[in-house]
Amino acid sequence: MPTVYVTRRATFNAAHRLHNPERSDEWNRDTFGKCNSPNWHGHNYVLEVTVAGAPDAATGYVIDLGEVDRVVHEEVIDALDHRNLNLDVPWMAGVLPSTENLVVAIWQRLASRLGGLNEVRLRETENNSATYRGE
Amino acid sequence: MPTVYVTRRATFNAAHRLHNPERSDEWNRDTFGKCNSPNWHGHNYVLEVTVAGAPDAATGYVIDLGEVDRVVHEEVIDALDHRNLNLDVPWMAGVLPSTENLVVAIWQRLASRLGGLNEVRLRETENNSATYRGE
Amino acid sequence: MPTVYVTRRATFNAAHRLHNPERSDEWNRDTFGKCNSPNWHGHNYVLEVTVAGAPDAATGYVIDLGEVDRVVHEEVIDALDHRNLNLDVPWMAGVLPSTENLVVAIWQRLASRLGGLNEVRLRETENNSATYRGE
Amino acid sequence: MPTVYVTRRATFNAAHRLHNPERSDEWNRDTFGKCNSPNWHGHNYVLEVTVAGAPDAATGYVIDLGEVDRVVHEEVIDALDHRNLNLDVPWMAGVLPSTENLVVAIWQRLASRLGGLNEVRLRETENNSATYRGE
Amino acid sequence: MPTVYVTRRATFNAAHRLHNPERSDEWNRDTFGKCNSPNWHGHNYVLEVTVAGAPDAATGYVIDLGEVDRVVHEEVIDALDHRNLNLDVPWMAGVLPSTENLVVAIWQRLASRLGGLNEVRLRETENNSATYRGE
Amino acid sequence: MPTVYVTRRATFNAAHRLHNPERSDEWNRDTFGKCNSPNWHGHNYVLEVTVAGAPDAATGYVIDLGEVDRVVHEEVIDALDHRNLNLDVPWMAGVLPSTENLVVAIWQRLASRLGGLNEVRLRETENNSATYRGE
Repeated sequence: MPTVYVTRRATFNAAHRLHNPERSDEWNRDTFGKCNSPNWHGHNYVLEVTVAGAPDAATGYVIDLGEVDRVVHEEVIDALDHRNLNLDVPWMAGVLPSTENLVVAIWQRLASRLGGLNEVRLRETENNSATYRGE
Repeated sequence: MPTVYVTRRATFNAAHRLHNPERSDEWNRDTFGKCNSPNWHGHNYVLEVTVAGAPDAATGYVIDLGEVDRVVHEEVIDALDHRNLNLDVPWMAGVLPSTENLVVAIWQRLASRLGGLNEVRLRETENNSATYRGE
Repeated sequence: MPTVYVTRRATFNAAHRLHNPERSDEWNRDTFGKCNSPNWHGHNYVLEVTVAGAPDAATGYVIDLGEVDRVVHEEVIDALDHRNLNLDVPWMAGVLPSTENLVVAIWQRLASRLGGLNEVRLRETENNSATYRGE
Repeated sequence: MPTVYVTRRATFNAAHRLHNPERSDEWNRDTFGKCNSPNWHGHNYVLEVTVAGAPDAATGYVIDLGEVDRVVHEEVIDALDHRNLNLDVPWMAGVLPSTENLVVAIWQRLASRLGGLNEVRLRETENNSATYRGE
Repeated sequence: MPTVYVTRRATFNAAHRLHNPERSDEWNRDTFGKCNSPNWHGHNYVLEVTVAGAPDAATGYVIDLGEVDRVVHEEVIDALDHRNLNLDVPWMAGVLPSTENLVVAIWQRLASRLGGLNEVRLRETENNSATYRGE
Repeated sequence: MPTVYVTRRATFNAAHRLHNPERSDEWNRDTFGKCNSPNWHGHNYVLEVTVAGAPDAATGYVIDLGEVDRVVHEEVIDALDHRNLNLDVPWMAGVLPSTENLVVAIWQRLASRLGGLNEVRLRETENNSATYRGE
């Protein structure tokens, strides 16, 4: 049976700030630069979720990508879209919202709902992205 | 002499919230929906600035696009990038930061510095944009 | 009052065939080439709808782009998405579904619902598009 | 010797319908939704073909990507472009044309012609894609 | 009769250098900076050619975009693709190959072949472009 | 500890020519076609550099992507941008500047500066790219 990787893209728009409250303001400014700007900034995030498996004989689907989209919205987008990643998201509480930490947290939200979850990629800008494969 | 339109693209990442403080919270929620979310959200804005004119005989340039880029950063990007459009930008104080109002304000910042300014386009998301031509 | 142009993007996926039933099969093959292929082909169409006006003082909106999206779906996308443009769309009956004819028909669907409709652009492929401004 | 992965992109436009003729119409509608629409719909497919190998000492090429393009057209694009994936393609006869099944079939067409074939990715829309690596 | 604007995209890859031989090397370095680099640099140019007219009653076409593509290749792409814009192009001889001068020269090549030519846009990079409308 | 892959994109514009001086002109023309054009051509190259590692507990970063950008500019972009890849780049001297050879050379420049370097992808055009993973 062939293993095929299917990917669904989704987007959300959120505010955040890179700031470690356990460190001094000076350390935060030196470390994070403009990403530490006190009144927040934001991004149009692009999320790509990949599931691996064999296509089903009856449907030709590894998984219905419409179902992937529903799960991604229920578990991730509904909580993040038009929100503040530092203040509004219970499952990011106490986590510094770097692209890296956010993509790992998104994987953890999705892994129990999407069997065969293979990769999550989060694009923060056209120049920066982070990818997690559960390892 | 031919009239050529040259366009320079620049980007910035900012937080904002659509909220009219002269109206009730209920009106704001009904009018702006998730864009009224209290703790801000944000975007990767894409700005396209167009200048019209005849190419110079010695340089072949309508205007040096490197100079356009410098002016756009001095007048616009340095003030908006990694900022909160409602709180951090003196020339947006008291202005509701819709894409429409922001693109008009950006035009006003650029018009005195860029002779022949013809059009400013501001893309807020891959689906939404606003364009102003000074009229 | 400034005039600002706001644009909303939407997408739909449809099948079609370029074929003029009043002409011979030979004429159709010669004229339309592979676009005349008898069992249909299809595209991911990208639609860009632009409305012009002055931003409202209370909302900062020329028009709520969420409302534009609802109208575009009700009048256009719901009828075209995952459909056959030659067979399934009452308001395209008897119209050869070239990008040109389709963009004019889309304008006519939208003009009475969207005051200030300024431009409709329809991208058929990454190389081909058609734009109509109601003139 | 380094192993380098070279990728060539190509596009085709096709109609299809997701429908399993061994199941009831009701099952098909429930399973495939609008993708089961009876009169077909279509897509601008984007195909990315990756070949792995060591660059040749004389040419600097893993493989001439112009040759990859010729093979991809001969084996895949010429058969699929401006065609109906359910009706017109002998090597898809009896295969439900999901993105998954199509990408596996494309791999099988290419594997004997392109030594070192490493990955085939097929993008159906800007949101959906499937990748196969021959495993 | 409606006026519709149809646009065809084409690409070419070329080398060039911004250098005015009537001026000193110092003036050229000061004016053009890295674009004056002596051993050339290059770009993936993207060309968008727009023709305006009424759709034909029999074909639904303003103009066959396949024919536009043939003319664009014969008049422009065949001469520019994989060439040096300063050295290899007879109709650019003695013309400083800025995006502005190049887009005007391309218009002049196309205007006599494409009735209804409305606009030519030339994108030099993702950040810089020039547009000419024959005025 | 999770392993996250972070990617930074950068661009440069360069001229080159595919030509093996140890072979005849005829062999070069037959092998490289228009890429052997004598007076050079060029591209807008897009470079994607991926570093793998565990996010730091204090910063949430695998590595500061601003630092990746500085290293990529110091080691690669400053040497290649607006240059001739055959003539101007000491570390490409005697190397045929195919995308494959260039991406391997870029990896070698970066590997000692970027611990955890995982992948370098170089896009030459929208259709062609090469990827190297240090193996």
